[in-house]
Amino acid sequence: MEAVENILKRRSIRKYTTEKIDADTMHKLLECGMAGPTCVNARDWAFIAVDDNELLAKLAECNGRPAGMLPDAAAAIIVCGDLSRAFPRAKDYWIIDASIATQNIVLAANAMGIGTVWLGTYPQMERVEKIEKLLELPEEIVPLAVIALGYPAEEKPDDKFIYEESRVHFNKW
Amino acid sequence: MEAVENILKRRSIRKYTTEKIDADTMHKLLECGMAGPTCVNARDWAFIAVDDNELLAKLAECNGRPAGMLPDAAAAIIVCGDLSRAFPRAKDYWIIDASIATQNIVLAANAMGIGTVWLGTYPQMERVEKIEKLLELPEEIVPLAVIALGYPAEEKPDDKFIYEESRVHFNKW
Repeated sequence: MEAVENILKRRSIRKYTTEKIDADTMHKLLECGMAGPTCVNARDWAFIAVDDNELLAKLAECNGRPAGMLPDAAAAIIVCGDLSRAFPRAKDYWIIDASIATQNIVLAANAMGIGTVWLGTYPQMERVEKIEKLLELPEEIVPLAVIALGYPAEEKPDDKFIYEESRVHFNKW
Repeated sequence: MEAVENILKRRSIRKYTTEKIDADTMHKLLECGMAGPTCVNARDWAFIAVDDNELLAKLAECNGRPAGMLPDAAAAIIVCGDLSRAFPRAKDYWIIDASIATQNIVLAANAMGIGTVWLGTYPQMERVEKIEKLLELPEEIVPLAVIALGYPAEEKPDDKFIYEESRVHFNKW
């Protein structure tokens, strides 16, 4: 899909068919995740791709009520920050760098016909801690978000509200 | 440009021609900024588009050494969080929501032939405070990033390093 149209038409998709995501497609999604800018080119992220059904169900239990569709997703990608790589003078750039990676994956998936929903993890620390425990993550790895992925089994109407005039200022506040 | 290719080929562009960005193009960029997901659909961002040369020069002074190209940019967009709209139980989701908006603009610009560089502001608080002061921002508005924009006057080689195997894990850490 053309890139601007792809950005404007992306919607959160929460119902999926039973079709799995093949390895090449998953690789392309992860490549897109790594293609964004990072602060001082730190590349301070890590990715955990999950397609094991049992693990998807456990992951759902970690990430609060909005994650209820995860057991029925084809896969998930947990996007994490890696604090050992983060810009030492302002480590919290990891949040931004991991968000860029997550949005790249969401957009790439949409372009490849795969539905996604961005399930927020950080800064809700009870979710962060549950995922850290489930996956036995090293201390420097912090989960930012879980992306649920699957081929869409729902259609969203094409009347999304986007532009909000009051949010824009020109050359002064 | 096709959406996945657009994600993979984006590079930071720091040299620009003198061509300005017209109002329709700026509108489309801002629309893309508002098309991303936000936590509980809070739409907790605000955008300040700048094309005044004097203001671009002052903005450069606020945002540290990496912002040196701003006086020669065609325009800039300052992407801010709006804390008055942020999810009350976890306000720091504004950082993520504003990052999504920024990356959408960066990708849309690339697709429209416009070069960008993401100039990090938050969490470097001295930059945040200088921009707040320069633009007399209301208390609830926090600048996350400045996007420098302009038609490219440099080419980047097509050999970008992207995929890093060690960053990916499957079904366990």
